[in-house]
Amino acid sequence: MKINFFHRYAAYLLLGLLAIGQTSGQSIGVPVAPLGDGPWIFDTAEQHKIRVSVVARGMSHPWSIAFLPEGGMLVTERPGRLRLIRNDELDPEVITGVPEVRTDGNGGLMDVAIHPQFSENGLVYLTYTKPAENGWGAPALAVGRLEDDSLVDVRDLVVTEAYEGNSGLNGRVAFGSDGKVYMSTGGRVDDAAQNPRSLRGKVLRLEDDGSIPFDNPFANRQDYRPEIYTLGHRNTLGLMLHPESGEMWQHENGPNGGDEVNILLPGRNYGWPIVSFGRFYSGGRVNEHPTREDLESPLLVWLPAIAASGMTVYTGDQFPAWQGNLFVGSLRMGGIPGTGHLQRIVFNERTEEIRRELMLTELHRRIREVREGPDGFIYLLTDEEDDGALLRIEPAP
Amino acid sequence: MKINFFHRYAAYLLLGLLAIGQTSGQSIGVPVAPLGDGPWIFDTAEQHKIRVSVVARGMSHPWSIAFLPEGGMLVTERPGRLRLIRNDELDPEVITGVPEVRTDGNGGLMDVAIHPQFSENGLVYLTYTKPAENGWGAPALAVGRLEDDSLVDVRDLVVTEAYEGNSGLNGRVAFGSDGKVYMSTGGRVDDAAQNPRSLRGKVLRLEDDGSIPFDNPFANRQDYRPEIYTLGHRNTLGLMLHPESGEMWQHENGPNGGDEVNILLPGRNYGWPIVSFGRFYSGGRVNEHPTREDLESPLLVWLPAIAASGMTVYTGDQFPAWQGNLFVGSLRMGGIPGTGHLQRIVFNERTEEIRRELMLTELHRRIREVREGPDGFIYLLTDEEDDGALLRIEPAP
Repeated sequence: MKINFFHRYAAYLLLGLLAIGQTSGQSIGVPVAPLGDGPWIFDTAEQHKIRVSVVARGMSHPWSIAFLPEGGMLVTERPGRLRLIRNDELDPEVITGVPEVRTDGNGGLMDVAIHPQFSENGLVYLTYTKPAENGWGAPALAVGRLEDDSLVDVRDLVVTEAYEGNSGLNGRVAFGSDGKVYMSTGGRVDDAAQNPRSLRGKVLRLEDDGSIPFDNPFANRQDYRPEIYTLGHRNTLGLMLHPESGEMWQHENGPNGGDEVNILLPGRNYGWPIVSFGRFYSGGRVNEHPTREDLESPLLVWLPAIAASGMTVYTGDQFPAWQGNLFVGSLRMGGIPGTGHLQRIVFNERTEEIRRELMLTELHRRIREVREGPDGFIYLLTDEEDDGALLRIEPAP
Repeated sequence: MKINFFHRYAAYLLLGLLAIGQTSGQSIGVPVAPLGDGPWIFDTAEQHKIRVSVVARGMSHPWSIAFLPEGGMLVTERPGRLRLIRNDELDPEVITGVPEVRTDGNGGLMDVAIHPQFSENGLVYLTYTKPAENGWGAPALAVGRLEDDSLVDVRDLVVTEAYEGNSGLNGRVAFGSDGKVYMSTGGRVDDAAQNPRSLRGKVLRLEDDGSIPFDNPFANRQDYRPEIYTLGHRNTLGLMLHPESGEMWQHENGPNGGDEVNILLPGRNYGWPIVSFGRFYSGGRVNEHPTREDLESPLLVWLPAIAASGMTVYTGDQFPAWQGNLFVGSLRMGGIPGTGHLQRIVFNERTEEIRRELMLTELHRRIREVREGPDGFIYLLTDEEDDGALLRIEPAP
């Protein structure tokens, strides 16, 4: 018990330092205590009462979830571990065979997705930061076959240009309704997102073996990388197949304000860094006008920023009032550490926003990932150094 | 005590019904309990701990505060009462002489401002909804002289066109650094805000006796009402003289998203209903592009809406870390009743936003008004039917 106490105390100090942050010598951030044991009961606007409980904890920067058809789930940890959670237990053994990752900055092992025919082929797709010869990292996509507790036959399908610096290393991967693999790459830095010869700041579209689909929008253009599906993205931290429409939905972090959700259409340009609803961190607007006729406007915008991460559209039976609602995780709101939460967005029948609810603000967690489970409950990952947790949301009586 | 218990219980039921609301047959809203006795201690991002206490309560829809040079303050109640709070005590006697108001919808007695030479002339300015011959109401500005506990020599300075309906009746009044009276009028309905012959959806500029300043931007234009200072406003619920820059700052509620803060410049058009960052309540965008070269862009935008109400720039000594920060009240966030709070916005030296903090979310109050007191504390009004309160924010040790 004494050890546990000191471990907690040390974690509290560490989290406090991380949460408070430093900007121009001034302490900013809401004080954050370690996550308690739970469960917690919260009132919400339409479901009235929910119960949030800790399924597993003690992970380091858990980043993404892939539910397995036979039950349980894979969870990535950003430092480079792939974990298995089954029957609400975190397997203490890691899954071997994961590629070596570069973990400085925001990079490391990130997204995980399983092949639509996973039950037959066991294929697991991972986005990660690959150590590059220049000492920095390159966003990459790898595939391997899960056999028992190992990934085998692991190989890279995409390795993008190496960055110089730690920014914009984020990458998501998701399968489309067309069976193709969609992969996002960070484009925060410079104007790579608009460069048709760069893979950065894009969403790419690939066959499941990494080859290039013949019907990609730029498959026959010499001046474009043929992998490109969409252009002009900043930091994509959400990419999903919409379970009802079959569209690919994406969200990206604006700099200081201007986080946005987009519906991806082939060959379209989503504008970064030409247009944005956000500001630079120093305060100036990215531009006077946040939209332009020849660039795609977002479906949704956040002002101020919520540092969106993860997304799911609810389709289950546990929360009938939430069917069709979009859930988006928030790492922090308005630029203030300690203000992460979960957002619920309600649409009308024309996919036009009609209201948004902030949820779980009381927990003060950085929500990295949000997914609907096969059981109809909602699962979240909290982004913490030493005690990242898997949370489950259920209806409360 | 028994009576008090039942009174509380009844108020709880009533508030619950109001807060939950009804939209297309579906209950929406976070359950809201009556305001407790306080005080409450909260952590914030930069000041660390604040203490919020109830100074006075039991008011009906308190709307605005004017601090008096000799101490104490005037507070308006929307049903048509002007109250005096002195030494933290709400005077049970109302101030007589207030004009008769129409109270349906959002209208009634609204803003109160005192003349810059109030100590000499005792002049008090009130915005209110004047009952109109058509059975509806007309936003109006009246002035009277405060003598003991009465307003005397009360007369109207402005009576705008009557509305047909209860929407857009809001009006603010504030004195500028030029000694002129600025008055806002609601322009939610139809395109009155763009009609230069209508006083609706405008900010007006007047001499303290209601006459028209010779240097008004449209003083010599036959096709404009000469009272007009700025055009194209929806529902202005914040209007203030910026204490440092001497500019007039205004904020207005967007429909569904797109609340905005503007810096008012003479003769400029702020765009409603041509451009807006918001959506209609049914979900569609007001327009594809939220800005246009020939219309003024907002200084700040909220997406989703916070139903902004009241505003102050902090200049006092009690909260050194907050000097120069803008505080804005929120009646509710994202279209969800029960989510009102206080926002703090931090600017850089070029008045460019760098971060925003949500505060007092735990209280679940509709914040109607926020003002800095002469004592350097921050005062808030909560918009409740039977138990509207004056709250004070102080540093907590």
